[in-house]
Amino acid sequence: MHGNEPLGIAVIGTGRMGADHVRRIDRVVSGARVAAVADPDAERAEAVAAGIDGCTVHTDPAAAIAAAGVDAVLVASPGPAHEAALLAAFERDLPVLCEKPLTPDAASALRVVEAERALGHRRVQVGFMRRYDAEYVRLKALLETGRLGRPLMLHHRHRNVASPPFFTTSMLITDSVSHEVDVTRWLLGHEITAVTVLTPAPSPGAPEGLRDPQFVVLETDGGALGDVEIFVNCGFGYQVQAEVVCERGTARIGDDHHLVTHADGRWGGPLTQDWTERFAQAYDDELRAWVDTTRRGEVGGPGAWDGYAAAAVCEAGVRALEKGGRVEVELAEKPALYR
Amino acid sequence: MHGNEPLGIAVIGTGRMGADHVRRIDRVVSGARVAAVADPDAERAEAVAAGIDGCTVHTDPAAAIAAAGVDAVLVASPGPAHEAALLAAFERDLPVLCEKPLTPDAASALRVVEAERALGHRRVQVGFMRRYDAEYVRLKALLETGRLGRPLMLHHRHRNVASPPFFTTSMLITDSVSHEVDVTRWLLGHEITAVTVLTPAPSPGAPEGLRDPQFVVLETDGGALGDVEIFVNCGFGYQVQAEVVCERGTARIGDDHHLVTHADGRWGGPLTQDWTERFAQAYDDELRAWVDTTRRGEVGGPGAWDGYAAAAVCEAGVRALEKGGRVEVELAEKPALYR
Amino acid sequence: MHGNEPLGIAVIGTGRMGADHVRRIDRVVSGARVAAVADPDAERAEAVAAGIDGCTVHTDPAAAIAAAGVDAVLVASPGPAHEAALLAAFERDLPVLCEKPLTPDAASALRVVEAERALGHRRVQVGFMRRYDAEYVRLKALLETGRLGRPLMLHHRHRNVASPPFFTTSMLITDSVSHEVDVTRWLLGHEITAVTVLTPAPSPGAPEGLRDPQFVVLETDGGALGDVEIFVNCGFGYQVQAEVVCERGTARIGDDHHLVTHADGRWGGPLTQDWTERFAQAYDDELRAWVDTTRRGEVGGPGAWDGYAAAAVCEAGVRALEKGGRVEVELAEKPALYR
Amino acid sequence: MHGNEPLGIAVIGTGRMGADHVRRIDRVVSGARVAAVADPDAERAEAVAAGIDGCTVHTDPAAAIAAAGVDAVLVASPGPAHEAALLAAFERDLPVLCEKPLTPDAASALRVVEAERALGHRRVQVGFMRRYDAEYVRLKALLETGRLGRPLMLHHRHRNVASPPFFTTSMLITDSVSHEVDVTRWLLGHEITAVTVLTPAPSPGAPEGLRDPQFVVLETDGGALGDVEIFVNCGFGYQVQAEVVCERGTARIGDDHHLVTHADGRWGGPLTQDWTERFAQAYDDELRAWVDTTRRGEVGGPGAWDGYAAAAVCEAGVRALEKGGRVEVELAEKPALYR
Repeated sequence: MHGNEPLGIAVIGTGRMGADHVRRIDRVVSGARVAAVADPDAERAEAVAAGIDGCTVHTDPAAAIAAAGVDAVLVASPGPAHEAALLAAFERDLPVLCEKPLTPDAASALRVVEAERALGHRRVQVGFMRRYDAEYVRLKALLETGRLGRPLMLHHRHRNVASPPFFTTSMLITDSVSHEVDVTRWLLGHEITAVTVLTPAPSPGAPEGLRDPQFVVLETDGGALGDVEIFVNCGFGYQVQAEVVCERGTARIGDDHHLVTHADGRWGGPLTQDWTERFAQAYDDELRAWVDTTRRGEVGGPGAWDGYAAAAVCEAGVRALEKGGRVEVELAEKPALYR
Repeated sequence: MHGNEPLGIAVIGTGRMGADHVRRIDRVVSGARVAAVADPDAERAEAVAAGIDGCTVHTDPAAAIAAAGVDAVLVASPGPAHEAALLAAFERDLPVLCEKPLTPDAASALRVVEAERALGHRRVQVGFMRRYDAEYVRLKALLETGRLGRPLMLHHRHRNVASPPFFTTSMLITDSVSHEVDVTRWLLGHEITAVTVLTPAPSPGAPEGLRDPQFVVLETDGGALGDVEIFVNCGFGYQVQAEVVCERGTARIGDDHHLVTHADGRWGGPLTQDWTERFAQAYDDELRAWVDTTRRGEVGGPGAWDGYAAAAVCEAGVRALEKGGRVEVELAEKPALYR
Repeated sequence: MHGNEPLGIAVIGTGRMGADHVRRIDRVVSGARVAAVADPDAERAEAVAAGIDGCTVHTDPAAAIAAAGVDAVLVASPGPAHEAALLAAFERDLPVLCEKPLTPDAASALRVVEAERALGHRRVQVGFMRRYDAEYVRLKALLETGRLGRPLMLHHRHRNVASPPFFTTSMLITDSVSHEVDVTRWLLGHEITAVTVLTPAPSPGAPEGLRDPQFVVLETDGGALGDVEIFVNCGFGYQVQAEVVCERGTARIGDDHHLVTHADGRWGGPLTQDWTERFAQAYDDELRAWVDTTRRGEVGGPGAWDGYAAAAVCEAGVRALEKGGRVEVELAEKPALYR
Repeated sequence: MHGNEPLGIAVIGTGRMGADHVRRIDRVVSGARVAAVADPDAERAEAVAAGIDGCTVHTDPAAAIAAAGVDAVLVASPGPAHEAALLAAFERDLPVLCEKPLTPDAASALRVVEAERALGHRRVQVGFMRRYDAEYVRLKALLETGRLGRPLMLHHRHRNVASPPFFTTSMLITDSVSHEVDVTRWLLGHEITAVTVLTPAPSPGAPEGLRDPQFVVLETDGGALGDVEIFVNCGFGYQVQAEVVCERGTARIGDDHHLVTHADGRWGGPLTQDWTERFAQAYDDELRAWVDTTRRGEVGGPGAWDGYAAAAVCEAGVRALEKGGRVEVELAEKPALYR
């Protein structure tokens, strides 16, 4: 890639998320093009690539990554396929935007960290797109001014209307709370050292057998406490709220106040119903930022270490959920590359 | 009245408002008792007085005012009966709390002003109870700090769920907007000099023939502008909102944010449905303040001049409604007693 | 006491709280009078009683309770003196409004419960005045409609500008969180079965040595979870917020939205600064309700069992604070009198 | 233009607005490229075009419009230059996005309407970008559901921190209120029939001689009323709010609730400080929509008739401001092309 040429991207995985990223690269974000797509389901890949000039279609991720005109890789395949795709990209020293989770468990995530360290420079950005959401960005900026003093506690609410059919009790931690894990680390600049998970009586609105809601307490090496209400079958809306309590004040995001009505004896507004609506802009901005930094030859945003740390915390969370009580998080030593 | 004796009050009129004041004096406010009641409907008066020790019942207001143990008078009869009751109280030099309007028109109100001036000291407090509402009190206090600078504009919203059957087009001005007239004078410390009334196409929700909503523009001798949306058949709730726009900031009251729910795809809260709910506390506080100041031999709150000025502005408003365009308000010279 | 006579009340303790109750009985609430006061500091008691007709002054609580014209007792002395005053009132079978805590520990509170049970009927109302706050009352009423489904979680925020000089780490539980303990039991109708207390690094704004803020997790016998952020040196305002998460929706109280300004680059409003401002109305309403029910020969509101249960939960909370981890609450069997 | 080729755009005018559009085409919006720029200030045009592959630089707008690779025209020059640029584009039958105002007065705007009518099909989209703002779009969508009934009144607030040095009293109407004029027409689907302008005593915060704030009342042919508070030196923030009052409810946009803090005795949040921050997304979305529809060979959004109608209403507004009272709006007959 050089000059004003658009960045040629290989998109690995063309399911819901991959197809959406293809659309975003093709139609929304300037300066990039879809150069190749890969999916084991060739028909699905063909459909997604249809009408995109010069986009080749593959069933093997490595072939897509090696295709002509590929400058960078976007990994949107299922989590268990991430490690192989990341290593294939590393082999060609290509920058990667990898959807979360980096990999499904801490051990494999640590292997990716090691492989990137061996490469000698950062190549991976992990798709923790909340770091690109305008409200979280404002919150982070406010904390960095120091105006409110040191953060002491961080209260999160994370609610979905309904969980998909395949959702399990531990996925409330690994799939949902993993966002709060990353956001807590990012907002506070702390590592998480212990996790406790409490489960009230399940909501009758949740599928039989699912422990929903859950209440998670996170402790950090900076002495702060985080707590997360995760409730994936709340029925009424999609809500992501965060309140940071600092020594001299608090700051809250996630209110949904765009249109206020007075009617039928009530004031208020409609609630966002899902994450595609709530975070559409964050996904656009994440991709735009990644394309821009990549074209400048830089790497920014959350990296492989962040993907690994989230995986390690979630693993501790699942153990806490299963056995009860407080579980300490064990992290490998942080390589110099990520400091 | 002397020492710790409760203030003996004659209540003139035992309709909805009068009966409510009797209850308030008897059960809620300390330091006062109902000494006499008067109503042309003797049965109604008897029912209201039942069970109140030492309360005499009359059909003639003057007789109630002259009854033993009466230290003060509360006038809650229909507007056209106010003037006679006020003059009867003046005759005995008794303090009066007179429900709004002071009298139904500017000419009669001016006669009351003249009579009180002849008395040589203030005796009347008019029942503009919004001046005792906690939110208006906060707004007034903020304006008086001068922190926001000089008030330039004042936006009012005044909405009722539905108007009573006897409500007429001009009563939107004389019965409803009269509150905003008083509040504008009180908050700004200005007199109102001109009124314009605009009427959009009536709401299908209003009774046939009623011009509802209306939009009223008030000009003041301090160069400020007030505007009032009055909508007495809005269907959804009772709302009284005010926003003062000053040279360095604005201040707003009247949001109804006491209980916030998230359910059924919406956030928000219930709307207050009528004035008894919205202003219950203001009525209590008004009566408590009147009893306290009266026991101390003082007179406070809005006086006869305020009742007269409101009547004069509303008369101009009704003319503006009928003939269109801007109508100037003509006020008598303000007696020294009220300065 | 009979007929329309005001209720004669002996007020035990004339410190800040007692003096305020004397004022309330004398000046605000109708139907009651201060018949006697007692305080070891005779001078203070004399000052508080000055100007109240027929109020006798005592240094011995029992003497005040036995004084002529005493129909009921209000206990506002320091906690350790409550038990004796309650027993003295029981001896004369008088109704009592006892400021919180009922007594300082679970053992003594249980003795009061036993003594009342021996009496054979309820005599005690405990001063958990949040049950009379308009916002909590609305929240309770909403939960009782069942519209939101079963409560699953209850999030509390309780923040003070600054703690008084004598405040200790365990008083965050016994003095502050005790309110949330009662409110949780009342709102949910559950007993609390276990307590966990977590402490982040203390705020630099807190006095040296005070573990402030704390984060308390309550488990209930109905399978619900409560959590409390208690932060008594937050510096910015007095906040009491509660959010109930039910199976079909949430409901929140405690926003402070009475006056909204736009100025200096910011929108928003002033924060309440202390509990006397936030709960003034609740104290008035509590006392009015107690006087009314007592005059009717009834007993309502939170009783001795509620005082005992709060003491037992707080004791478990202090143990959890001291030793870490989760501590189960042990409650005596609930006497039939309180069912 | 054909196939997947990006749309080649000639940008006329490279001042603040033009340069920003060049950046947007080049860096933000996919599917378009800057093919030519024109500005009388050649140096400024060169600077803006620097680093854009294949972008030619002109001092004559007509030359830029005629340049190779130009498929469409974006007019961002000062208002008086719009008419000539539009006619030049019409000559080549090119689609145009023309920044507001279409032209500076109703007579010239009507000439553009006539020229487009002579062309026989719509070519012009006017840059009323509020129609692309997410909040206005939500408000419009809600009104179209009919859930709130027919709109009766529309209250606008439009506040700027400070006006630029060249701002005149009539520019509050032509430059600022012109947005509310368009939005009123669009939201209600009515034409505006009369304008009244009231001016309170000017704010001490406004430059000497500027009548700021002003209060504008709009009447529509659908029987609705609009009112606009325009205050361009309010000092505290940039606010654009709209509240529609319908027969069964109201709907409001423009609250600024993205980040709520509690600190320093206050709750609330920062206010947006200028329109580039408030409407950045609307500008992006407007340009993206124009590029997309243009590539599909379609024309959407506000057209030349909307530009003309706004100019006619603003002219009436300026006369109302100058002479006082109510001024009727005179509109030409609407050509069939725009129905």
